[in-house]
Order: sequence, then structure tokens, then C-alpha cells
Amino acid sequence: MNSYIANALSDFFFKYETPRQVLVRNRRVGVVCRLIQLGVLAYIIGWVFIYEKGYQSTDTAVSSVFTKMKGVAYTKVDGEEWVWDTVDYVFPEQGDSSFVVMTNYIITKGQKMGKCPELYPSRVFSSCLCLAAPLLRPPQGHMTGKCVGNTTKTCEVVAWCPVEDDRKIPDPALLMSAENYTLFIKNSVTFPAYGVKRSNLVEGIDNQYIKSCVYDPTTSPLCPIFRLGDLVQLSGFNFATIAKMGGAIGIVIDWTCNLDYDQSECKPIYTFHGLYGNPNETDMARASVGYNFRYAKHYMEDKQEKRTLLKVFGIRFDIIVRSVARKFDIIPTLTAIGSGVGIFGVATVVCDLILLYLLPKREFYNNMKFKVTETQTMGESQLDWLDYLYPLLIGENMETNARV
Amino acid sequence: MNSYIANALSDFFFKYETPRQVLVRNRRVGVVCRLIQLGVLAYIIGWVFIYEKGYQSTDTAVSSVFTKMKGVAYTKVDGEEWVWDTVDYVFPEQGDSSFVVMTNYIITKGQKMGKCPELYPSRVFSSCLCLAAPLLRPPQGHMTGKCVGNTTKTCEVVAWCPVEDDRKIPDPALLMSAENYTLFIKNSVTFPAYGVKRSNLVEGIDNQYIKSCVYDPTTSPLCPIFRLGDLVQLSGFNFATIAKMGGAIGIVIDWTCNLDYDQSECKPIYTFHGLYGNPNETDMARASVGYNFRYAKHYMEDKQEKRTLLKVFGIRFDIIVRSVARKFDIIPTLTAIGSGVGIFGVATVVCDLILLYLLPKREFYNNMKFKVTETQTMGESQLDWLDYLYPLLIGENMETNARV
Amino acid sequence: MNSYIANALSDFFFKYETPRQVLVRNRRVGVVCRLIQLGVLAYIIGWVFIYEKGYQSTDTAVSSVFTKMKGVAYTKVDGEEWVWDTVDYVFPEQGDSSFVVMTNYIITKGQKMGKCPELYPSRVFSSCLCLAAPLLRPPQGHMTGKCVGNTTKTCEVVAWCPVEDDRKIPDPALLMSAENYTLFIKNSVTFPAYGVKRSNLVEGIDNQYIKSCVYDPTTSPLCPIFRLGDLVQLSGFNFATIAKMGGAIGIVIDWTCNLDYDQSECKPIYTFHGLYGNPNETDMARASVGYNFRYAKHYMEDKQEKRTLLKVFGIRFDIIVRSVARKFDIIPTLTAIGSGVGIFGVATVVCDLILLYLLPKREFYNNMKFKVTETQTMGESQLDWLDYLYPLLIGENMETNARV
Repeated sequence: MNSYIANALSDFFFKYETPRQVLVRNRRVGVVCRLIQLGVLAYIIGWVFIYEKGYQSTDTAVSSVFTKMKGVAYTKVDGEEWVWDTVDYVFPEQGDSSFVVMTNYIITKGQKMGKCPELYPSRVFSSCLCLAAPLLRPPQGHMTGKCVGNTTKTCEVVAWCPVEDDRKIPDPALLMSAENYTLFIKNSVTFPAYGVKRSNLVEGIDNQYIKSCVYDPTTSPLCPIFRLGDLVQLSGFNFATIAKMGGAIGIVIDWTCNLDYDQSECKPIYTFHGLYGNPNETDMARASVGYNFRYAKHYMEDKQEKRTLLKVFGIRFDIIVRSVARKFDIIPTLTAIGSGVGIFGVATVVCDLILLYLLPKREFYNNMKFKVTETQTMGESQLDWLDYLYPLLIGENMETNARV
Repeated sequence: MNSYIANALSDFFFKYETPRQVLVRNRRVGVVCRLIQLGVLAYIIGWVFIYEKGYQSTDTAVSSVFTKMKGVAYTKVDGEEWVWDTVDYVFPEQGDSSFVVMTNYIITKGQKMGKCPELYPSRVFSSCLCLAAPLLRPPQGHMTGKCVGNTTKTCEVVAWCPVEDDRKIPDPALLMSAENYTLFIKNSVTFPAYGVKRSNLVEGIDNQYIKSCVYDPTTSPLCPIFRLGDLVQLSGFNFATIAKMGGAIGIVIDWTCNLDYDQSECKPIYTFHGLYGNPNETDMARASVGYNFRYAKHYMEDKQEKRTLLKVFGIRFDIIVRSVARKFDIIPTLTAIGSGVGIFGVATVVCDLILLYLLPKREFYNNMKFKVTETQTMGESQLDWLDYLYPLLIGENMETNARV
Repeated sequence: MNSYIANALSDFFFKYETPRQVLVRNRRVGVVCRLIQLGVLAYIIGWVFIYEKGYQSTDTAVSSVFTKMKGVAYTKVDGEEWVWDTVDYVFPEQGDSSFVVMTNYIITKGQKMGKCPELYPSRVFSSCLCLAAPLLRPPQGHMTGKCVGNTTKTCEVVAWCPVEDDRKIPDPALLMSAENYTLFIKNSVTFPAYGVKRSNLVEGIDNQYIKSCVYDPTTSPLCPIFRLGDLVQLSGFNFATIAKMGGAIGIVIDWTCNLDYDQSECKPIYTFHGLYGNPNETDMARASVGYNFRYAKHYMEDKQEKRTLLKVFGIRFDIIVRSVARKFDIIPTLTAIGSGVGIFGVATVVCDLILLYLLPKREFYNNMKFKVTETQTMGESQLDWLDYLYPLLIGENMETNARV
């Protein structure tokens, strides 16, 4: 038993198998095949390793964004002076990554719960049929069923009265001075797989720099303070248009970092995209224009609950963080090498095809390459005999003696 | 030197190595091994390339979602008529991808800061011990330490008084008409790697269509207007139940696009999932039921700050965008080919095993396959001599002459 | 034609090609190469399959988070008792995954629209030049151009008056009792590729457990109730510091699940990270300290719109869900095997190099390994003749007879 195991181990460890190769000394074949092999090698090293960085593993970041608007807008509507500061025009107020900056509005002051006619003339029912049908879009309030009005009859509703009249949108937008607002973005990213933590306030950005810088794609691409007018322009919009009806802009903070270099080279790149209110008016604008929502400020007056309703048109900002970090890792490297060796095998197959099927001396090479074994029985067709004789004529071993 | 380099280059470029193969002419082995090879090839082409699309690279989208609710609810509580419109029942109001629609509430009007007893009888301390223990859940206000009340003593707190009594939740839900609200979703996705931009308002959806369509999974699967009752039903919930205690529903917008085809075939698929308030009442409901939060409207009355507190029960909607786009790319294609060649090698190993260890003539094939070299010294064991004699008997070369 | 196809099929199916191998019986080479091959095998099985789980495919989750704060804070400022409950200190109120807990504030009561001087002395223009320059950060209101004040002149603005004086931040923070607030997190994850749905209220967590448990990393790591003071401490912050100026904390819920095991072993791990207000004061703190935003409560007094402005300092919580689920899949398994076979090929190449270039008998092995074919013409250089004679001397076939 022991000697059996010993022999098995010795057989295993003291032998080495290497594929036997045929060395073809043919200039044309040699050059062509070497060029194919060099091409494959160049592809593997050049494209897979260097360009596509196949030797690195990737990771995406855990990210957090905080925003802060600054700026004041001044309106004089019907002789009434009003100033709108951050508290009044940013929704929501706590500095999320997604927020709206009000640029235009329709205000309905002092609404209180009661009965009043719906908006004329957008919903006039013939024969004053004022019953709410469940499939229709709901009306502005709860239909009482009554029909009111002198000249044109409209349905009466229980609602916050008087109902809002949003047919005429102020043009130009009331808060055009929103162009000069500034947006400050603080963004922190962490790549957990590599334990790397970065912030968009990169090295070199301190309190002094922040106090005076404004983002510019060429001169100050790392300044985290953005002027709203610039943001709108960089997204491809026209400020007057987007301010009147509202729109949406995506600010993409792109972190593409090669962590084989120093961490300080991991810096964000800001890009700006118009999201819905497309300058290309063909598909999007037909379906849904602008960006708006309603908002109310409640208060008590004479022991009655009242509210001031605002239909807010504004620019919606979505700050989206895209991140990919790469770092050298042994597994993708060896996987790429492994696949590369496989593709090298394809190069060998291609050259073999040329050698065995295309060259003038292909029969010769066939016999060089293949060592043919005999068939199962002796009484085979003459074809098999020829398979025996041919290599014999060329000079192969005496396979005939091999037949047991 | 030149001739040395010339010879080296000529040696490199003018030679070509190809593995020498043994051609086994055995019907059984041939058929079996060819079938194995065809099977591997079918797997590589059929599964890896066609089914799993191994020839394509993938990318996920940068996405932005905007929502808008429409609808009005009417309540008549204690003879008081009230109408709740979008401004009153959607939190937050600016159209985020995550929002709550109020379906039920407990209202406590006219709270003002002062001292009053806590809620009876949920926290009655024996011997009227009213000291706030740091490990207990905080009380409804700041404990004064006093013990108040006539029949049953309760602790006194500094709080917004009177404290809220939330023991009895209105059943049925007060805003059951929320079933008829409609939700409009605008979703824009961009696949940066391929420069493709899509919106859920696909080709064919224009203003007219939007004015009248309602989402239906079979008849109008691309309509971006959803009726709330339908959403609840498609998530597997019962509206009356979820309206009373609240719940959460996830709307998943799935973009799975093959960008080798025309872009217009890249369309979203909507699915609806109940998130927490599981119809399966076993695990989830025991721990935490429904969805609620508190919200206050502040106002001044008689120069005193007051507030109306609402405990809001509602349906939380989370709109989640899942996206994967695929497009033909040379790298994954060649990687799949490379790995495929490697797996082909495994097929060869399996067949070799059959050939060398299972067939009756395996010794013969062993000798056909392996060309044995001699050992290190002449004085080897008799076993090594047999290794020499055997191939000689079969007809191999005269390795004996090879010994130097 | 038929016989041609029959012969082609028979040629294809009844033959099997296997590479001819040279069996080297050399102890040193054998041991070294076997060790290299065993090493590669150990790497493939140990690292790629077992450690990196190369036999599994991965999927990320669709996730939804709901939060709820509990707790009350008591302040006594200028003799005025006040209690702050959840409604007052959480922004926003509806339980999002991202929210702010107020820990400190500067309050400006009863602001009304009018004209008043800007804040003294932060913006004093020499020669009372009060024109708003478009490149400067906007002022606190709309500049009238007038210069007001007795001792020191300041610019007059149209604004909510009196303007906010935020120069002195309350120290210690006014709502230090926020330390005892508790945060309840409900998180639902779904892995769509595997159809698995999980919640952080895992098996074993029921209503009773939730009523009394508090999260602790070692004793109760699955309790979804977190005490705010603990959260701050686990993030590496000091509560007093972060409460005064505000800060941001990321709560990462990590789902790393091996779905080859039972689903109940798929449990979340909570980690806590300070996001911006870094304890390391060097880079971050210089640029931007703390976390704050402004918020207003509007009301009507004497038919005039007024507001109470709060500059809120607080802790921003971002709950981030990271998820990766793995499950056995045939494709990555076979891809790993395929690449592994390729890498095995590299091991063979390395051993061949040793065999052909480093060993003393390398010329012998060269001739064992390579079967050389003749050159294109007979009149070759003497070198080619030597290529012919050498194998002949060693004992190779009579290639000379092969020349046609």
C-alpha cells in the first residue's frame, strides 16, 4: 500500500507534461501568424489593460449632498414692495439634494372654506348639470350640485374660496432676479471597498476661496458656488423661458477616480443637464410643460382659518452623484490574463486553419501536425490503410507495430 | 551584433509553432467527444451570448422623477364641511419622488404652550411618582413633577396643551375619497455611457392623450397618470385597511433597454409593491403597523402663538427607478470568447480522461499521446528501464541514443 | 454529393484530436512545475471561488426607508418656558430617509416687510455707498440706496424687518436634551433578481421588543431604535460641539447577503459615519463648518403678514442603504473556470521557459518538444542543414524523406 502511494506520488510529482509542438519553418506563415499573435497581444495589453483598465476592480460611492441658496429677490406688484429671501423661495428649506427655486407665482390671498362658483369658463356644464362624475378629473372643490352665476352659469363648489384663477401666468416671470442667486453644494463621497473618503471641497479650497469664487467650467471648475443664471445657461436653457413656466435641471457631480494614484487627484467634475423642459420643443413640451406645484400659508383671522395659496413656478434642481473608483486588484488582472490566453488560443486556431487548409503544402503540414492512431478493427476500409501508408511514406513511426 | 539581431528576428518572425495533435480514429470516443464539444459550444453561443447577452456591456441610468397629485376630498365632521385639496393632503408639496398622501387624521386644534395633565390613562405612576426616567421613552412634554387630576392621578407636563389624544383612530378613514385621486409621474433617465436620454412620456404620448388616459397594466401600460385606488389594488392592499392606518407603496419604474435596437423601443415598465404594511400580517404587522407622522400649522391668536396639530395617517409612495441598458461592446465579447476557449479546454481534458483511463486500449493511447523523455542518470531503477523498453517495443524513437 | 457529406460528417464525428504531450521525467522540473500548477489551482479554488465567491452572481436591492423621531426638549430662555416636540424640531416632518434634528437656533420674532438698516457692522460702506453690486454676495434685502444710522452708517434695505442678527450663536446649544431623543428606522429591501424581500425588522423583533430595546453595537445590534447621543458618539463626534454648530451623520444600513444560505441569515449591519463636520478639523472645517438653514412660520397680525424666522442648527441624518446579494449562478462559475484554465496555461508557459531556456539539457528538451518542418527551398543556408542533421543525430524521424 505504502509503495503504491509512494509510486503514485512519485509519478505525480516527478513528471511534467508539456505539449509537443510542431515548428513550421515557413516565412510567409511565420510572419502572418506572428503578426496575428502580436496583434492579439497588443489588443490585450493596449485595450484591455491600459485603455479599459482591466487590471483594476471598481467600486461606487456612498454619497451625501447638502445645498444652500443665497440671494434676495425684489418685486413691486400693484405698488406693493416685497422682498423674497431664501426662506420664501426655496422648497424644501432644509438643504436637500433635490429642491425648487421659485421664479414665478400666482397668488390667491385670504382663501377661506365656503361655497363659491368654480372658475369661469373652464367647466361649464350645459343645462347646468353639476354632478361630479367619478371618471372625470376632480373639480376644484366638492360639487354642491347647484348652478350659480348671472350671465354664464358655473357649478358651485365647497372649496377654499375664492378659487384660484391660474389662467394667466405672469410674463415676464415675477422673480427674474433669481438669476443672481447663488447655490452652494457640499458633497461627501466614501468608497467603502477602498476606505477612501473625499469631499468636493478639495485641497486648496478654504474659507477665503469660498467667500469670493464663482463656478466657471474653465477658470474655476472646482468652486462649489454656482450662480443660477450660469447653471441655466450651461444646461442649455434660456432663463426668461424657464423662469416663466418653470423647468428642471440636473447637476451631475461625477467622481471618476483612479486610486492607484494619489487621493488628491480624485476630484469631482460638474455637468449640467436640462431634464424635462427641453429646448427641443417637439416631444416633451407637447405633453407636459414646465414645473409647478401649489403651496399654502395658513393663518387665523377673526377666529377663522384662512390660507394664502401660491401656485409656484420654479426651477427644480436635482443633484445627482455618479461615482466610480478603480484600484489595482489581483483578481480582475488574472481574469484578464486568463481570458487573454484564451484569445491567444483563437489566434493559434486561425493560423492552424491557414496552415492546414490554405497553404500549398497543406497535406504535408497536416501530417506533421497530426499523429494518426489506427481504427478499431483490422478489417477496415482501404481508406484506413492509406491513412497508415501515407505517414509511413512520409517517415512517421511504425504505428503498425503499435497495433496490439 | 547586427547579424545576431537579424538572426534573432528571423528566428522569431519566420517560425510558427503549432501544437502537435494526436488524431484518434475511434468511433465511440470521436462521437462522445464531439458531442461534448458541441454541447460546450452550444452553451457558449446559446446561453452566454444569446440569453445572457454576454456580448454587451451594461450601464445604469442617471434618473430624475417629478410627481403631481390631483384630486379633492370632502369631509363632514361634526357638521363641519371641509374640503381637502392637494395643498392640504400631500407631504411634501413640491412633487418629490417620495411623498405621503393623507388618508386619515386625528386633529387637535388650538394647542398653546402651558401646563396640563398627560394623557389618561396611558402613563399613571403609582404613588404619583412623576419624575422623568432617562431610560423610558420621553413623555408627551416636560415633566413638572406634579401630580394632577381628581379621580385618577396623572403627571403634569409643560407641553402644547391640551395634549393630543390619539387612542381612537377614526374608522372608516376620514379621507376615503382619496381613492379617486390621480398621480402624474414624469421620469427622465439618461444613460451617460451611451449618450441616450429617455423619458416616460414616450413617443405617442401628447397633451391630448394625457388629458384623458388612466394607467392600466394591459390596456394603457404607458399612461403616466395613475388612479390611487388602482395603485393600492395593484400592490395587493385593501384600500379601506391601508387608508385607516396608513401604509407604504413602492412604484418601480423599470427601464431595461437593448440599445442595439432603435431607441424608441426603450420604454418603462411600472410595477407596484406593498412595502411595509404587508397583507401577510404575521411578521411585519406585529412589529410596526401602518404609516403616520405629526404635522402642525402654527398661527397667532390674541398675540399668543398657537398651533393645530395633525396626526397624519397616509399612504407613502416611493418612486424607485431601476435601469439597465445594454449595448454591443467588443471587450465583453472577446472576454466571453476567451473564457469560452478556456472552457473548451475543459472539454478536451474530460475527453482525455476518458481516452487515457477508461477505454480498453488506454495504454496504447497513453503512448500515442505522450512522448517520454529519459531520467536524469543512467543508474535508474528497473522501472525506468521498463519505461524505456515499452515505447521501444511499441515503436517510438530511439531515445536511448538521446542520452548524453 | 451524399457520399461527400457522409464522408465529411464521418470525418467530423468519428475523429478526436488531442494534443500530443512530451512527458519529461526530470525530478527537479517535475516538482517545480507541479508546485506551480498546484499553486495556481489553490489560487483559483481558494481565492476566486471561496474568498471572492466567483461562483456567484450579484444583485443590488431596491430599498425604501421610513424614519420616526421621538422625544421632547425643554428650554427656558429669558424666563420663558418652551417645549419642543417632534413636530417642532424635525425637518421635514413626514419621515424621510434624510432629515434634520434641530439642536440649536437663533430666533427672530415678528418680522414684517418694511425698510430697516442692514446688520451692523458687517457691511459698512465707506462714504455710504449703498448700491448693490451684482458680483457681490446679495445683501440681506433689497438696497434702497439710502444710508441710515446715527453713530455708524449702514445701508438701508427693504426686507423682513428687523433683520436677523446671527453673529452670536448660543453656546451651549439650546436643545442639548436632543441627546435623549430616539430614532426609529424601518427599512425594506427587495432583491428583484432573486425575488427576495427583507426588512430590518428581522425575525425575532416584535412589538414587545421594540417597546423596550435600544440599539447597541454589541448587545442589541438588530434593534431599530437608536438614541441620538449614541449615534453621535458612534460617528466619532462630540455631542456638545455638533449640537452648537450642527453637523451631518450618515447611517449606513449594509445588507450583504449570501442567498445560498437561508433567507433568515440575511440581516442588516448598521454603521455610522460623520459626514462633513469632521473631528479632524484640518481640511473640512476651514471651508465650511456645521449645518444650518433658515425656516419661517408665517402668521397674520392686525391684518398684516408677519413671520418668525428661525436659523436652525441641527444634525442632518442621511440613511443610506448599501446592498449586495450573492447567489450561485452557472455563468460566473463557468467563466471563472474558463479563466482559470487560461491561467493554468500561463503556468505551463512558465514551466516551458524553465525547461527550454534554463535547464542544462535544454537543447535536448527543445528537440523533444519541437518537431521541426523543413524550409521552403532546398538551397538553404548551412544553418538549415544543421537543423536537419541535429534531430537526426538525436534520433528523430527521417524528415529528409519528408521533403517533397
